[in-house]
Amino acid sequence: MSMSDNVRARMAEGSWIRKMFEEGAALKQRFGEENVFDLSLGNPIMEPPPEFEAELKRLVENPVPGMHRYMPNAGYPETRAAVAAQLSSETGMKFTPDSIVMTCGAAGAMNVVLKTILNPGEEVIVFAPYFLEFGNYIDNHGGLTRVVPTDEQFVPRLDALEAAITANTKAVIVNSPNNPSGAVYGEDLIHQVGNLLQKKESQYGTQIFLISDEAYRKIIYDGLKYPPVFHHHRHTIVATSHSKDLALPGERVGYIALHPECSQREELIGGFIFCNRTLGFVNAPALMQHVVRSLQQVTVSVDEYQKKRDFLYSHLVEMGYSVVKPQGAFYMFPKSPLEDEVAFVEQLRQWNVLTVPGRGFGSPGYFRLSYCVNDATLEGSLAGFEKAARESNLC
Amino acid sequence: MSMSDNVRARMAEGSWIRKMFEEGAALKQRFGEENVFDLSLGNPIMEPPPEFEAELKRLVENPVPGMHRYMPNAGYPETRAAVAAQLSSETGMKFTPDSIVMTCGAAGAMNVVLKTILNPGEEVIVFAPYFLEFGNYIDNHGGLTRVVPTDEQFVPRLDALEAAITANTKAVIVNSPNNPSGAVYGEDLIHQVGNLLQKKESQYGTQIFLISDEAYRKIIYDGLKYPPVFHHHRHTIVATSHSKDLALPGERVGYIALHPECSQREELIGGFIFCNRTLGFVNAPALMQHVVRSLQQVTVSVDEYQKKRDFLYSHLVEMGYSVVKPQGAFYMFPKSPLEDEVAFVEQLRQWNVLTVPGRGFGSPGYFRLSYCVNDATLEGSLAGFEKAARESNLC
Repeated sequence: MSMSDNVRARMAEGSWIRKMFEEGAALKQRFGEENVFDLSLGNPIMEPPPEFEAELKRLVENPVPGMHRYMPNAGYPETRAAVAAQLSSETGMKFTPDSIVMTCGAAGAMNVVLKTILNPGEEVIVFAPYFLEFGNYIDNHGGLTRVVPTDEQFVPRLDALEAAITANTKAVIVNSPNNPSGAVYGEDLIHQVGNLLQKKESQYGTQIFLISDEAYRKIIYDGLKYPPVFHHHRHTIVATSHSKDLALPGERVGYIALHPECSQREELIGGFIFCNRTLGFVNAPALMQHVVRSLQQVTVSVDEYQKKRDFLYSHLVEMGYSVVKPQGAFYMFPKSPLEDEVAFVEQLRQWNVLTVPGRGFGSPGYFRLSYCVNDATLEGSLAGFEKAARESNLC
Repeated sequence: MSMSDNVRARMAEGSWIRKMFEEGAALKQRFGEENVFDLSLGNPIMEPPPEFEAELKRLVENPVPGMHRYMPNAGYPETRAAVAAQLSSETGMKFTPDSIVMTCGAAGAMNVVLKTILNPGEEVIVFAPYFLEFGNYIDNHGGLTRVVPTDEQFVPRLDALEAAITANTKAVIVNSPNNPSGAVYGEDLIHQVGNLLQKKESQYGTQIFLISDEAYRKIIYDGLKYPPVFHHHRHTIVATSHSKDLALPGERVGYIALHPECSQREELIGGFIFCNRTLGFVNAPALMQHVVRSLQQVTVSVDEYQKKRDFLYSHLVEMGYSVVKPQGAFYMFPKSPLEDEVAFVEQLRQWNVLTVPGRGFGSPGYFRLSYCVNDATLEGSLAGFEKAARESNLC
């Protein structure tokens, strides 16, 4: 009676994940933090890079009057200019500050974008496995989530995408490097997705946005270069954050970038600014906007994450696990040795190893590992993986 | 075609206010900042108190590993404990950390609360004049805004409130000290409102929340004591921020506090935490949560605001304006000398004085002044007020 029926229903849906987290916390209390190997959270263990600490100190030791006050809801013009310059250099396209809106992280950016574009009942396509919150974000603003499968490498299948697009499709969300699979979508694929969207736009006389969640854009391995999504569809909106590249997830600073040649560009940007304000974000946190201005080219040590990936990947494969080698982000999405991956995740938990079942990402039969943890946790988890593998007759 | 019809419509509704702001910016460019007297924004000119600067420096110079990482979505337990202790001491009631959720300011808190409780079509009552964003917040989550008038002192009228409550009423929003009127609701009134809500709850078999937006709770004059709303209705939810008491509006840190004896307390708090996460706030900014922990008893110099109030109030009254003397916040809401207050605001603008028409707050015939500006701006505005008064035959 007191609570929204929809919120109650959505909470109940996700409540088994919460239950697992709670049981994990209980394990830690029982056995001690150091004896529980928690690979369930995407909370980077790394500290922000030294450039961040230096810039934060500089600002705090030389306070400028008004530095904690409201600024335009889109963010400081200087910060938006720095982001625009960085995007221009990454893409070779011309971004100006008026295509950028600073937001409370990528989660804030996604909600602002979806609120701005969605009419009730319009559909948004996501590719499984997908970040479990996308469904909540879409629902918040009256949209319907349409889940489309990927191939064995976790790469979107064009035929499945084409079959899913209707006159009612308002947007397609891509998330590369991907949470939970670590897949990075190649330039060819993005190009084909762009072409397909344009074909469907002509066919239906609609506008179909490509929303690219790029929270992990800078966390990419093996010398790969990130292929900019902007090149392949002019109705592209990028939502991203500095949570992962600067290891600041608690500080909530990110941005929306709109394609400079998007139709109705000004109206859309006006909508983003309006929704940033009225959804209650008002603006991205002021101090962090000051800090990230000069750090657009700074990233945490990706080599360290790559070493962790290599360590875990090689051991899991050796134990007989079937794993697609991640090319970015800091997650791995192995196949569950048991058909029921919840049962397998439960089995790992018996050995004090915490992971997340694939159905939390729309892909039952898999499970997610986060390797943004310290080396001792990774090393400590191996015994549990080995025992669980043996119990499942993997080796 | 590209944008939500509802967002477009709501933007158009508010667009004349934006137009005024833009014209104000043009005035500043033309005449120079110092020759335009902008009383249109609630962006406090004051710097944060020295205790804030000291604590921020201390934290930044002694960084603790993990201080920028994710924490529980409800916020740091230590920060919630500090807020609970402060509320316990202010109210004499027993608050525990699990009744507190740290949020991205009061705007974030209001959106989280409304999303958590509202089913589509349920009604929320606001008292005019009211903060113009409440209507957007309610609409965001499918609710309907029901506006109820106040009396000549801008105090809610119980008969009007009683007439407005139906079986479909989910909540009543109070905002004291009030933006835009500066009215502070007395303990008697709050008590009567609480009684009325309880009577109506029995009558309809419903639960009616009293949502108290207390962003200005600490900005209160003439030695008045703030009467805690919690004492008078157990279905009370407080939404507030440190934007005004610590002069940090750009930093987005505030909280939700739920009455310790509210029915379904645990479920509601779970809903707030869920909605804080899924609306994309995720958590209140980490560094600011660390900072405000030890500043719960610190407030900017209220005396300075009181001096500004006294200065502006006495001059306006002398010129013949009809003004209810504000008891808190940093706004004044004089009666417009012209029936059409938009025309009067326009007239003030001819004299480079920027204010906001009352219809932006649901109360045509009035206009809002913000006196959280420096003294030169206040002093400089007097000539314009005088000339506009003369033109309107006030004196």
